Amino acid sequence: MSKKNKITKTGNMSQWYSYIIQQAEMADYSPVGGCIVMLPYATKIWEYIHQYHNINLKKRSVENTNYPLLIPQSLLEKEQEHIAGFSAEVAWVTKGGNEELSEKLAIRPTSETIMYHFFAKFIQSYTDMPLKHNQWCNVLRWEQTVTKPFIRGKEFWWTETHTCHASKKEAQTEVKEALNDYVDMCENLLAIPVIPGKKPDHDKFPGADYTTAIEAMMPDGKSLQMGTSHLLGQHFSKMFDIAFQDKNEKKQFAYQTSYGFSTRILGGLILAHGDDDGLIIPPKIAPIPVAIVPVYKTESKNKVVSKAKKIKESLEKLNLDVVIDLDEDKSPGYKFSKWEQKGVPLRIEIGGQEVENNSICAVRRNWKTRIKNNPDLGKKEIIPDKDVEKQIPKMLDEIQNELFDFAKKDLEKRYSIAKTREGFDSIIKEGNGYCETGWCGDEKCDEEIKEKTAARIVLIPNNPKQKYAKCIVYGKPSKETVLFSRKY
Amino acid sequence: MSKKNKITKTGNMSQWYSYIIQQAEMADYSPVGGCIVMLPYATKIWEYIHQYHNINLKKRSVENTNYPLLIPQSLLEKEQEHIAGFSAEVAWVTKGGNEELSEKLAIRPTSETIMYHFFAKFIQSYTDMPLKHNQWCNVLRWEQTVTKPFIRGKEFWWTETHTCHASKKEAQTEVKEALNDYVDMCENLLAIPVIPGKKPDHDKFPGADYTTAIEAMMPDGKSLQMGTSHLLGQHFSKMFDIAFQDKNEKKQFAYQTSYGFSTRILGGLILAHGDDDGLIIPPKIAPIPVAIVPVYKTESKNKVVSKAKKIKESLEKLNLDVVIDLDEDKSPGYKFSKWEQKGVPLRIEIGGQEVENNSICAVRRNWKTRIKNNPDLGKKEIIPDKDVEKQIPKMLDEIQNELFDFAKKDLEKRYSIAKTREGFDSIIKEGNGYCETGWCGDEKCDEEIKEKTAARIVLIPNNPKQKYAKCIVYGKPSKETVLFSRKY
Repeated sequence: MSKKNKITKTGNMSQWYSYIIQQAEMADYSPVGGCIVMLPYATKIWEYIHQYHNINLKKRSVENTNYPLLIPQSLLEKEQEHIAGFSAEVAWVTKGGNEELSEKLAIRPTSETIMYHFFAKFIQSYTDMPLKHNQWCNVLRWEQTVTKPFIRGKEFWWTETHTCHASKKEAQTEVKEALNDYVDMCENLLAIPVIPGKKPDHDKFPGADYTTAIEAMMPDGKSLQMGTSHLLGQHFSKMFDIAFQDKNEKKQFAYQTSYGFSTRILGGLILAHGDDDGLIIPPKIAPIPVAIVPVYKTESKNKVVSKAKKIKESLEKLNLDVVIDLDEDKSPGYKFSKWEQKGVPLRIEIGGQEVENNSICAVRRNWKTRIKNNPDLGKKEIIPDKDVEKQIPKMLDEIQNELFDFAKKDLEKRYSIAKTREGFDSIIKEGNGYCETGWCGDEKCDEEIKEKTAARIVLIPNNPKQKYAKCIVYGKPSKETVLFSRKY
Repeated sequence: MSKKNKITKTGNMSQWYSYIIQQAEMADYSPVGGCIVMLPYATKIWEYIHQYHNINLKKRSVENTNYPLLIPQSLLEKEQEHIAGFSAEVAWVTKGGNEELSEKLAIRPTSETIMYHFFAKFIQSYTDMPLKHNQWCNVLRWEQTVTKPFIRGKEFWWTETHTCHASKKEAQTEVKEALNDYVDMCENLLAIPVIPGKKPDHDKFPGADYTTAIEAMMPDGKSLQMGTSHLLGQHFSKMFDIAFQDKNEKKQFAYQTSYGFSTRILGGLILAHGDDDGLIIPPKIAPIPVAIVPVYKTESKNKVVSKAKKIKESLEKLNLDVVIDLDEDKSPGYKFSKWEQKGVPLRIEIGGQEVENNSICAVRRNWKTRIKNNPDLGKKEIIPDKDVEKQIPKMLDEIQNELFDFAKKDLEKRYSIAKTREGFDSIIKEGNGYCETGWCGDEKCDEEIKEKTAARIVLIPNNPKQKYAKCIVYGKPSKETVLFSRKY
């Protein structure tokens, strides 16, 4: 593709997103519209996320499980508020083998109902509490709107955790700690800064007392929800009879929570960090943190390749997955672009000169299309062989931190506050991020802004910058400080 | 439950199996018949199997992926022999949200067709080969026969690997290496000895050139298939147009393999090792390798519990998951039984005496109901505190090896050979394991034995003990040495 026709993130982010997902071999489209295959590159990132989050889950004594895929209609419809939120999106199995089923079976759109059917059985006494079950699985929602790989689709993969507690206070603490873990995972693993907060009541999970969430700002000025954590209270436990005998042998209903995040965060990862040249993957979750490109003429080939292999081995001892690009048909320049497009954080070039000087040349993933005035990035760094095992991990750590710092600064730029309607209107018109302001608590005010501007309330942030006396819409007294934004 | 009414493995293995699965909290039954929930205890074992097998997959450059759950009817039915093998077992989605679908969608009973649809796109040139994709996922087969958790059910979890190669020889090697990995996993991780071999042609996978498998002998004399590895040849690649340009720019169809094993091996694990007192889990995959039971009177409680916690910490440093049973309402005897039932390989008792003597008391999972004349097992072993970190891992290694050795000897006892029909009939009548003999290659001979005895050919073993001149059924010349047995 010529430079002129290059599909760039700065040019058209939506087009770039679809293009780069296939080019970098993250995903491909199923013949069933709205479904995808997650290719090895994306699956590896998702596995790193599993590993990281599993450690956090274990610290909080959450256990992994595998609940059934299929939910009988009667069970799914047991809780009315809940099913109302999902009924339009359920895929139904009506036939098994050659027979019509006597009762339709839903493919789980989420697992509250099937899990709570079991919880009622597992929980009898206060000694059975707390009960904390997680599962990593696929779910299906028959989306009617346009789908986009990872961001919105019929089938996706996720972690959903469901917990039962003896007291409301304990459940509230669980909701909070889970959200804290999600912040940790997004910021320290994915290098994406997020804003934790609460959803307005009219936007909470169907059946929940309240919903908390984390939101991340994408470079197109739209907010992406990266995870949610709900206090379900006793709503479901009363419906499903999840009850226990307390120490006084009195029957009590459990206080419940549920929380989760999905492969949607992979979409966030691509959008947040990528640039015109392709993906940028933070080192901690990079399927390939280091790519070695040997550069040789025929006479130096053996020495160069043999050195490349040695460097690979020494890095693998540090538990880094390294590739050597030995493709005979392609030029070094082609290879440089290829690994940049895949977002490999660090490239090592080894040629005749490096063999002679007992050194390697390390090159960070080029960010010139993003950070115009940063001369350090994309710079070549000569590292003596003896320092490779120390320097490379250090450089990877630096890149991880720089990615986060850059994203953090970007978020700050896209976070405005508005005390007047004029100020609010001009910020929202620009559509370039969050606008913090006051809200009276009336859903209609949110609706009105949404109709007029496509922005809406995405969060009641935990740590607002200011307090506001009035609701930005009609000037009624403000009850909550909220963030307005367009959203995915 | 009184001793008299105790449900024992030696008394009624099938009843015991259903009982112990719920008692030891491995699984529970879904309201959808034939489906189960895999509880934390079973899920943890399955996760250890993932970890172990993932390392083997990586060594052979197999990459993990997540392919779609739903397969359009037209795609599933593209390969006639294949669909004929599965059509009676497919669960169909016919409705999405409130709309009837224009084309029925199958929930994957296995993923050949959906994966090969993509492979045709991914593979263009010889440089794209080999392609090796694995996925860990759930599949659904609408079983009509009686189901049994793990052993046979509608939904189960598995690993399925699908590979494409440029030559038949390379594909054959893949089939062999995959089966070797399965042998390794069963024997070195699950401590279950297996027999590798080939399936008779009339029992191969629908659409395969040939099927290889591993079989394990269960204590009720029935064989359980623990994994399969198929050479698919060019059967599917021609149907799905999975072709590549070779070095001479000539179009070639790929040679394919597929192989997998499922949560059925958890059923094998329970059956193979369990005894009248409950599960026995090999240490390498035990969710709880060590349970500490503090035994104290009121005055010694603090010292005992504090010592128990110290021992727990020191073992956790060795990466062992240890529990301390602090339940105030239960007696030490109850706790001993509880952890035995769960199959915890090693129990540590700590009481006042142990505190005084700076030692612990380690007790292996009691095998007395199984190995009547082995005085070493169940013996109490006093270990000085200073040796705990060395001795406990050593004891766990020994238990792992003993479990395998015992199962290996048991297999040898249940492996007979028959050169005459009379010998064959009496072995088969006894129904107590494998009978190795000669077979002419005619399916009818297998059918006849099956009708008369419920035994059938389960495998053409790779390493038979003998050669046989004649087929055991009608005396025609033998073509293959086979194993007859009843099977799951």
